[in-house]
Amino acid sequence: MRRKISLMGASGSIGKQTIEVIREHRDSFELTAFSVGGNIDMARQLVKEFHPDLISVQHKQDAEKLQTELSAKVLWGMEGLIEVATHEQTDILVNAVLGSVGLEPTLKAIEAKKTIAIANKETLVTAGRIVMDAAKEHNVIMLPVDSEHSAIFQALQGENRKNIDRLIITASGGSFRDKNREQLKEVSVKDALNHPNWTMGAKITIDSATMMNKGLEVIEAHWLFDLPYEKIDVLLHRESIIHSMVEFRDSSVMAQLGSPDMRVPIQYALSYPDRLEMKNAQRLRLEDAGKLHFEKMDFERYRCLALAYEAGRKGGTLPAVMNAANEAAVSLFINGKITFLQIEEVIENAMSNHEILHSPNLAAILETDKETRSRIFSFYR
Amino acid sequence: MRRKISLMGASGSIGKQTIEVIREHRDSFELTAFSVGGNIDMARQLVKEFHPDLISVQHKQDAEKLQTELSAKVLWGMEGLIEVATHEQTDILVNAVLGSVGLEPTLKAIEAKKTIAIANKETLVTAGRIVMDAAKEHNVIMLPVDSEHSAIFQALQGENRKNIDRLIITASGGSFRDKNREQLKEVSVKDALNHPNWTMGAKITIDSATMMNKGLEVIEAHWLFDLPYEKIDVLLHRESIIHSMVEFRDSSVMAQLGSPDMRVPIQYALSYPDRLEMKNAQRLRLEDAGKLHFEKMDFERYRCLALAYEAGRKGGTLPAVMNAANEAAVSLFINGKITFLQIEEVIENAMSNHEILHSPNLAAILETDKETRSRIFSFYR
Repeated sequence: MRRKISLMGASGSIGKQTIEVIREHRDSFELTAFSVGGNIDMARQLVKEFHPDLISVQHKQDAEKLQTELSAKVLWGMEGLIEVATHEQTDILVNAVLGSVGLEPTLKAIEAKKTIAIANKETLVTAGRIVMDAAKEHNVIMLPVDSEHSAIFQALQGENRKNIDRLIITASGGSFRDKNREQLKEVSVKDALNHPNWTMGAKITIDSATMMNKGLEVIEAHWLFDLPYEKIDVLLHRESIIHSMVEFRDSSVMAQLGSPDMRVPIQYALSYPDRLEMKNAQRLRLEDAGKLHFEKMDFERYRCLALAYEAGRKGGTLPAVMNAANEAAVSLFINGKITFLQIEEVIENAMSNHEILHSPNLAAILETDKETRSRIFSFYR
Repeated sequence: MRRKISLMGASGSIGKQTIEVIREHRDSFELTAFSVGGNIDMARQLVKEFHPDLISVQHKQDAEKLQTELSAKVLWGMEGLIEVATHEQTDILVNAVLGSVGLEPTLKAIEAKKTIAIANKETLVTAGRIVMDAAKEHNVIMLPVDSEHSAIFQALQGENRKNIDRLIITASGGSFRDKNREQLKEVSVKDALNHPNWTMGAKITIDSATMMNKGLEVIEAHWLFDLPYEKIDVLLHRESIIHSMVEFRDSSVMAQLGSPDMRVPIQYALSYPDRLEMKNAQRLRLEDAGKLHFEKMDFERYRCLALAYEAGRKGGTLPAVMNAANEAAVSLFINGKITFLQIEEVIENAMSNHEILHSPNLAAILETDKETRSRIFSFYR
């Protein structure tokens, strides 16, 4: 039987690659529902190709226009997103939207007992406790889509979690890994968007350069794998070939490796616990790579990572503040309002000015998120 | 409940490390029976420390002498070995003897439904089909102890075998990895015994230098994991940190890594599927290693590996001939009768002069083994 998939964020980088995976395995997967933001051309094409029951777009007028053309039910906004996430037929929800907009639909999907394939970092970063508590309560599997978490998840297959000593999340170092902090003062947006190993969206590419991406992953790993921050390490590994590792109590380390290709972890999440063929994948040939490099993480060079550990450890609403401040700062950087090194300043300021609310509910988290952004944007207007 | 362990070959390199593992985990493991060859001092000490029910030594006079001193039952020879292997109380047999002497006791232990932890390569190399058929028939688990096979076995936990694309067995290259064939003409026994990464017995250290050790592992992997030789590759990896890998059909590669320490795979076999703490292990710190190197295997440089693939592919009695010829040749080399490069000549000659018997029974295999050795030794007397 084919697995029925709801995809939130079909027009993003992960969304498009999810579509590719579904397209390659029409006998295994079915696209039952999806959402896009404003890319209604893509919505049209996907409806024609996959005949989903239901789609959702960001704006009402786009929805109304599309509904006159298409056979699929067309919804819009948060309500539409929630309908996509919780569609009755759906087996797996792929949460591939950017930002905290994916939070509420994911919680609703968990309540509806959908398996969650989570590519949206903010969901776990800002509301990890709420989401994981809900997943436990409703006995829902949370499947990571990020290559690092997928690697850890794969390394944990057949293992008992009690035997984990630490997770080792690898980091390429991003676009500026060969620059020191002095040199970082000068870097441009264009330079920052040029990632050495992966082709990704703008936000995540900047997050790679600041190492905040790894910070978000550390917090995500904390929640996904239910481990304290002392047991989560980050290791610099230029080639991004070892996607991450788990060290066990017997000193054995299990790792997942591959050529950088996001379709692999996406497909693994969709086919889990089975694996399907990936015909057009670039096979890993370590003899061609020749060398793999490893280097200790430098928390002074990559201050955003230190901030993320701090936010994660202190918990409560602080990770939501950090995440919102980061999103705002990255947007300001991309729009030329601040320099690269000011990104971390903006985040640090937001964090140190925030009074942490412990065990916040969803409303408090969303409010914190909104407040943090609006404060930063009004300051830099 | 403690797992009861029979250990064949307690005084060898793997045997001693198995003892160390048992000693560190007295609440998990119990040494119920063991064998040594001629090291009766060690037998005495082990009986005092572990109070086994039963031990066995190679020679009758040693057995008779020990029996007057010790409370444990003392047997000798092949009969003693079989008693150790099939001891009623035993849960796991660790086969850590050198050479084909381990074959018959292992088969008897399989018939007695003991779990087998196999460190003796010759058992699978010479009689892989018989052993694995018996294991299947009696529903017995074969646990690898070699670091490479243990790595593969660990990488396969939670995976479906049908999804395996290939095994990638790593090879350090041995003592002479930086020498070309011209330089190999001159090498001494002392040089050959100086392995860069692992401290092991003499035979296996020479086998590492000739790459026959990897050849034996390839054949062993063929049987243990039931895969054709086309799906088993060897990759040069100087540091021996990645102990081996499995590539799956989705292009994902799972690897097991660690500092070179045979206690880790030994302990994993004994604790499988659980993992126990290893307090005094040297933890892997890739940031300290800095670089891992990989290089394509050169079958002309390492001719023994090509011979092993040939023997494996042709099958029947040929792997037994290859193995016996190798044991004889290594012994001749260690005793100064032949040069290093003559090892492969001796093996190749034996193989090309042999008329393969297909689907041999145990007697035919043992006869082939004996004949091959005696022919070589009489030639070089």
